[in-house]
Amino acid sequence: MIDLNSDLGEGFGIWTLGDDAALLDVVTSANVACGFHAGDPSTMRRVCAEAAARGVAVGAQVSYRDLAGFGRRFIDADPGELADEVLYQIGALEACARAAGTRVSYVKPHGALYNATVDHDAQAAAVVAGVKAFGDLPVLGLPGSRLLHHAEQAGLRPVREAFADRAYTAEGTLVSRKAPGAVLTSTDAVLQQVLRLAEKGEIVAATGEVVAVEVDSLCLHGDTPGAVEHARAVRKALTGSGVEVARFVVE
Amino acid sequence: MIDLNSDLGEGFGIWTLGDDAALLDVVTSANVACGFHAGDPSTMRRVCAEAAARGVAVGAQVSYRDLAGFGRRFIDADPGELADEVLYQIGALEACARAAGTRVSYVKPHGALYNATVDHDAQAAAVVAGVKAFGDLPVLGLPGSRLLHHAEQAGLRPVREAFADRAYTAEGTLVSRKAPGAVLTSTDAVLQQVLRLAEKGEIVAATGEVVAVEVDSLCLHGDTPGAVEHARAVRKALTGSGVEVARFVVE
Amino acid sequence: MIDLNSDLGEGFGIWTLGDDAALLDVVTSANVACGFHAGDPSTMRRVCAEAAARGVAVGAQVSYRDLAGFGRRFIDADPGELADEVLYQIGALEACARAAGTRVSYVKPHGALYNATVDHDAQAAAVVAGVKAFGDLPVLGLPGSRLLHHAEQAGLRPVREAFADRAYTAEGTLVSRKAPGAVLTSTDAVLQQVLRLAEKGEIVAATGEVVAVEVDSLCLHGDTPGAVEHARAVRKALTGSGVEVARFVVE
Amino acid sequence: MIDLNSDLGEGFGIWTLGDDAALLDVVTSANVACGFHAGDPSTMRRVCAEAAARGVAVGAQVSYRDLAGFGRRFIDADPGELADEVLYQIGALEACARAAGTRVSYVKPHGALYNATVDHDAQAAAVVAGVKAFGDLPVLGLPGSRLLHHAEQAGLRPVREAFADRAYTAEGTLVSRKAPGAVLTSTDAVLQQVLRLAEKGEIVAATGEVVAVEVDSLCLHGDTPGAVEHARAVRKALTGSGVEVARFVVE
Repeated sequence: MIDLNSDLGEGFGIWTLGDDAALLDVVTSANVACGFHAGDPSTMRRVCAEAAARGVAVGAQVSYRDLAGFGRRFIDADPGELADEVLYQIGALEACARAAGTRVSYVKPHGALYNATVDHDAQAAAVVAGVKAFGDLPVLGLPGSRLLHHAEQAGLRPVREAFADRAYTAEGTLVSRKAPGAVLTSTDAVLQQVLRLAEKGEIVAATGEVVAVEVDSLCLHGDTPGAVEHARAVRKALTGSGVEVARFVVE
Repeated sequence: MIDLNSDLGEGFGIWTLGDDAALLDVVTSANVACGFHAGDPSTMRRVCAEAAARGVAVGAQVSYRDLAGFGRRFIDADPGELADEVLYQIGALEACARAAGTRVSYVKPHGALYNATVDHDAQAAAVVAGVKAFGDLPVLGLPGSRLLHHAEQAGLRPVREAFADRAYTAEGTLVSRKAPGAVLTSTDAVLQQVLRLAEKGEIVAATGEVVAVEVDSLCLHGDTPGAVEHARAVRKALTGSGVEVARFVVE
Repeated sequence: MIDLNSDLGEGFGIWTLGDDAALLDVVTSANVACGFHAGDPSTMRRVCAEAAARGVAVGAQVSYRDLAGFGRRFIDADPGELADEVLYQIGALEACARAAGTRVSYVKPHGALYNATVDHDAQAAAVVAGVKAFGDLPVLGLPGSRLLHHAEQAGLRPVREAFADRAYTAEGTLVSRKAPGAVLTSTDAVLQQVLRLAEKGEIVAATGEVVAVEVDSLCLHGDTPGAVEHARAVRKALTGSGVEVARFVVE
Repeated sequence: MIDLNSDLGEGFGIWTLGDDAALLDVVTSANVACGFHAGDPSTMRRVCAEAAARGVAVGAQVSYRDLAGFGRRFIDADPGELADEVLYQIGALEACARAAGTRVSYVKPHGALYNATVDHDAQAAAVVAGVKAFGDLPVLGLPGSRLLHHAEQAGLRPVREAFADRAYTAEGTLVSRKAPGAVLTSTDAVLQQVLRLAEKGEIVAATGEVVAVEVDSLCLHGDTPGAVEHARAVRKALTGSGVEVARFVVE
């Protein structure tokens, strides 16, 4: 059994990004942008309603405050302020979710904040403090990250995610995007990785080693060409192999 | 018995406005800015904590999205989007309030949105729709406004407010700010108006008529010179005359 | 001889809108967004460079400060502040244009500001005051608008524009977008209107009357489905009929 | 002969910061905020006009785009985008300055960008590229910084600044703000440092060594309690000792 998550609701005002409707038919968990890197209130409410209609879990995709940079630039934010910004974003999305008949059931940092909280202890602790101030929500992140460490310490459920289309090292970490082969482009390679992960909890590293990787959720991207077809193929392959695709959160 | 409300938490980042701490010792209801005209998450959380510590009610001071104009400029916002923006702001503040051990117990529009919803039916209905989407919170506004009309229609408690330092017309509406004598500057005049309002539900219009004005809450301003002394004098005069000063909301 | 103008550079950060590159091959004047309703500095600079490379004139498409509303909502801005915002935007674009080897050669208000300055005298005067504070640039607008009136009074060249795909009234004004038939959808109807305008300075009103309309520039939209094909057809029809398509500004 | 510079125009909309008018009577160079960390167009234009009236030079105080953080947080901005943001800000201020009868005559990065460009080679080069794209303006920064290095390489005049109230190390760099004694609080200590710097080009390090420090401009802060009195005392002491206080830029 595995969860499929994707970033959604990442437009802003007149601007759109990705194909929310199509992805909502594939994933089981929707990481909804909360207004700091993308996501205006109407988009948030609409995506929540569409997720609710499909039984897709709504998660708060919290970010640095950076519309111009789409949350993809590290900001050396004060941890106290960052915690409060996380709290603010979850609360805003919670109101949209409840109005749509659902609720926020987990939190996942976006972009540069996601990357920072792998190693940046103070910011990882800040994100967890923000979540904890809101309530005991699960936190979605990279296995071995400071983020999941602090989540666990705080009594929050750490949800470990893997990437369908990223190459891994022998240590079970992601190959840097700057290295060649960091992103799997062949559909076959992606499906192989996904199936082995879901069935055996293993990944074949870029250097050939077989590595154990425990995973609760698979991240599917929606903003690249062919992303939707890609996501559909992953879901089909998983269910075709008898893997149950289901949200990790039970309301 | 009467409630005293004031706008609070209206700084943003490094910038501050008014004397929150002093006013929190005077008022019984704090209209906390929610980030759209002022109010960063850390300020919101701090003001909520300070209000909670004093037993002051926290209200969502919702606004047009307009930091540059401090929410003081009418924006011809789409009603559907406006409702969603109201919902978003209340939710964000609710998270801050709950983290501080309290909750949002009413909603008051700020600035140009307050003024617009006196007469602008679609925007008044939109604000009420946003509140209703969040929950059944009381709505604070001007007696006779479209805002309070729609609140009542939607089953929300309308909370009628009067202004300590504004002159009234014979119809019980505010004298336009552009007219001479619109703002009472003498402390004596303010205290006379406040006491008559609280004790008899009457106001003496600028043109001399005695007008019945039903009022649940008195608005005190905090961003003008001498505002805090002014506010203190009002509270002292009320309690000295045996009027109970208490929040209109009982948790 | 007629100028063709279009709104360009209307993305922001990760978000894009319309097909700038394609339209730059059709138009002779590019209304470049200046950061207030759309347009980040890198987009502005790139569009300026692409316009310069094609000999397309760069105009400042100034707007209310409203990214969330894409400048499409009337804001009751203070005229003094509005003038300064116009000045700021022109200056920012001028720096981008000069770095790209060209310069800002006219100004056109965007969206709700364009609509407001048809009738709103104070805002029309404010836009002109902002332009005049920058320098003696031509102002592009609707014939008969307060905007062009004030431009003329201030000694700025008024550039009168017409719309290829909008229906006109017998008075030579635009049929309201809310009325049926406000937008011409058939390519034939558009081309007929454009050719009659360019060749005879006449338009056939929706109600059948022939109306004289003096026009210096035709506005082509780029953000609707089929817009680019549409724009190409207009240019081709004009040049095919012997109308010279050329920028109204000579550097 | 020495220049005195200070950060000015750092309000935004309703919010103000520091005492611009008082400092404009003391300094010879005004670092005017350009809208990215502070500074709305009306404030920018007003400060430019006041500077022009006093013969004070106007400099562009360029920043990361971060109103919420007042530009005090490092942002890992893409160098190409950062250069364009610098260009945009200078252009916007230039328009305000010209409308006020003066012009931008130098550039100084603000806050976290100032600190980053001491060591961060790519961002230092980006700021210089942005300046250079605008024109050959002097760049104000810390002696020994990557910023001044790149400015010099690009053929721009590097303007070396020292701080009146900061303690220095034996290497001539600033004592970290986190270390005790980083900021000189006694007026005597500040005046001693300033006079020795201006007269002999020397500083006494916190550890007692006498260090040669070449300096073209002294930075005076305006946003701390007593800042204005402090600034006045520095100017008085300098002129009293026969040091000419004059802007480094001659128009």
